[in-house]
Amino acid sequence: MILVAVDAGGTRTRASIVQNSFESTGVGLAGRGNPVSGGADAAFAEIAAAIGRAAAAAGVSLAEVDAVTLASAGGAAFEEGFLAQALAGIGITAPCARKGDLAALFASGTHETSGYSLVAGTGATAVRIVGNVEVQTIDGLGWLLGDTGSGFWIGHQVARAVASALDGRTSTSMVGPALEVLGIEPDLALRASRPVASHELIRVVYTQSPFVLAALAPVAFLDDHDEVSSGIVEAAAHGLAQAVIDVHSDDVQGPLVLGGGVMAGQPRLRERTMAALTAAGLSLPVIDAADGLVGASVLGLRDAGVTVDAAAFETVRSATAAQLVRATAR
Amino acid sequence: MILVAVDAGGTRTRASIVQNSFESTGVGLAGRGNPVSGGADAAFAEIAAAIGRAAAAAGVSLAEVDAVTLASAGGAAFEEGFLAQALAGIGITAPCARKGDLAALFASGTHETSGYSLVAGTGATAVRIVGNVEVQTIDGLGWLLGDTGSGFWIGHQVARAVASALDGRTSTSMVGPALEVLGIEPDLALRASRPVASHELIRVVYTQSPFVLAALAPVAFLDDHDEVSSGIVEAAAHGLAQAVIDVHSDDVQGPLVLGGGVMAGQPRLRERTMAALTAAGLSLPVIDAADGLVGASVLGLRDAGVTVDAAAFETVRSATAAQLVRATAR
Repeated sequence: MILVAVDAGGTRTRASIVQNSFESTGVGLAGRGNPVSGGADAAFAEIAAAIGRAAAAAGVSLAEVDAVTLASAGGAAFEEGFLAQALAGIGITAPCARKGDLAALFASGTHETSGYSLVAGTGATAVRIVGNVEVQTIDGLGWLLGDTGSGFWIGHQVARAVASALDGRTSTSMVGPALEVLGIEPDLALRASRPVASHELIRVVYTQSPFVLAALAPVAFLDDHDEVSSGIVEAAAHGLAQAVIDVHSDDVQGPLVLGGGVMAGQPRLRERTMAALTAAGLSLPVIDAADGLVGASVLGLRDAGVTVDAAAFETVRSATAAQLVRATAR
Repeated sequence: MILVAVDAGGTRTRASIVQNSFESTGVGLAGRGNPVSGGADAAFAEIAAAIGRAAAAAGVSLAEVDAVTLASAGGAAFEEGFLAQALAGIGITAPCARKGDLAALFASGTHETSGYSLVAGTGATAVRIVGNVEVQTIDGLGWLLGDTGSGFWIGHQVARAVASALDGRTSTSMVGPALEVLGIEPDLALRASRPVASHELIRVVYTQSPFVLAALAPVAFLDDHDEVSSGIVEAAAHGLAQAVIDVHSDDVQGPLVLGGGVMAGQPRLRERTMAALTAAGLSLPVIDAADGLVGASVLGLRDAGVTVDAAAFETVRSATAAQLVRATAR
């Protein structure tokens, strides 16, 4: 049996060929595989590239593939008909099962089939998983409607705090680093009753996409003695913890799998989120997962009728990690 | 002496011809006179239209004009050279003095020359005025960087609260009215572990300009027994009051002039803002002003060396109001 597992994300796409039941025999990497911003054709081109590279590494032909499991945000980001046709176009006629990215992340962290996952990347989402499937989603509503505690949210709070500090309303050590990230001179001379740097901040922010604000997120973690930035980190951690609390159900015990770039890259955010969960009386085993590639493989194996227990999970995990090292080195 | 006073705003432009020292002898109305979004040429076309209508109402020729006073956001939204040339193009060779919109709003409310103004419209700004001029500006940083308590800010909070309620995290009576404003069916059936109305909210919000959220501001004021919406109104009022507190200086006693569409249209916001100021120990005489047209006239008269005391201010105010009634009826 030859399975193709794909984790198609907003930044990168990873594909793995899973053979001999549990072992990954090749991993392929490519760019943004999420159709939301660039469209389905561009996203599928990256997915096809990742699959092609994984197959080449494993030495298998795409015509031999028995099943495809595609994990992506929202679970149904591609139209079903589009996917079947696009896969046929690269020589895969096997069925394709679509999975939610948070269900795949969860299955990347544990062999259990029920529990929770929390992602804090550019966005922020918490889900409850029962029987491998997302049964409730909290937040993940995007930068305008939600995503409290996400990279965008933190960067946005940094920008507002810095703008307020330039108005002379507060004092924060974030002003210098934030202006540097945005390429603005720290000129505090007044022009039209407001510092020049404030005029520049307004100009830079409103002439670019709001998403540039996500680049300011790391500034919140530079100085843990700064009250304003610590307040932002604490509010982000509380927002993320609240998403887990709100998605929690007493009848689902399973572990909490954590993922996403901000959560993985900022240990203080992870620590404060865990502290907020503990303070709220919620104690769950916590596992970190890099992405949904292992999970897509696990979910694909389960769809094929294979039982993935703790030992089998460990085989999938370690084989995928080994292939990932090779793919990254290529 | 013939003065032209113009209040050029983001929604509408008003011009007044001031003669015989204090009396407005004609008012003209036109559309958006702010060059920020549509460019200088389009904005000046509206200004020219308003001036032309005012002059026609007053029965004066533009060649007779002795001075122009133009109030607009930022004070220097048009390049000086552009304005002189554009005014010459419509037959006005007299000098043009540019004023900040909040300085003009202040002078629309009082004959005093120092004090404060607070605007809560689509944006939110507080300024301290000394000797007719804005000497400090707090907020007015726009929808991404600030404007706490503004119409956009309130509408944005409504959208986030409604999205959260659709996630089942909170309960608020705003859900129905907000979905209605956005033209979304209140369908709570689940699709991909989230209500259909939630998917629709995401689709509508992210396929339109973020500014559509300002249309949700009135929803926050519908039910003063709803905890979530009352919390938004209270936070807006505190944000607006804080802007006044932060711009306040003990050596400037003058009155606080209030303006802007949300402040004028939502009495509860005004009441809660005043309550927050009182709670913070700040007690200022408060005056409401519709816009900066009277103020632009007052500032123009002062620039011409005329003393505008309480009695003269009242003459300018009542004459402008009378001409405005005629202009609106035309």
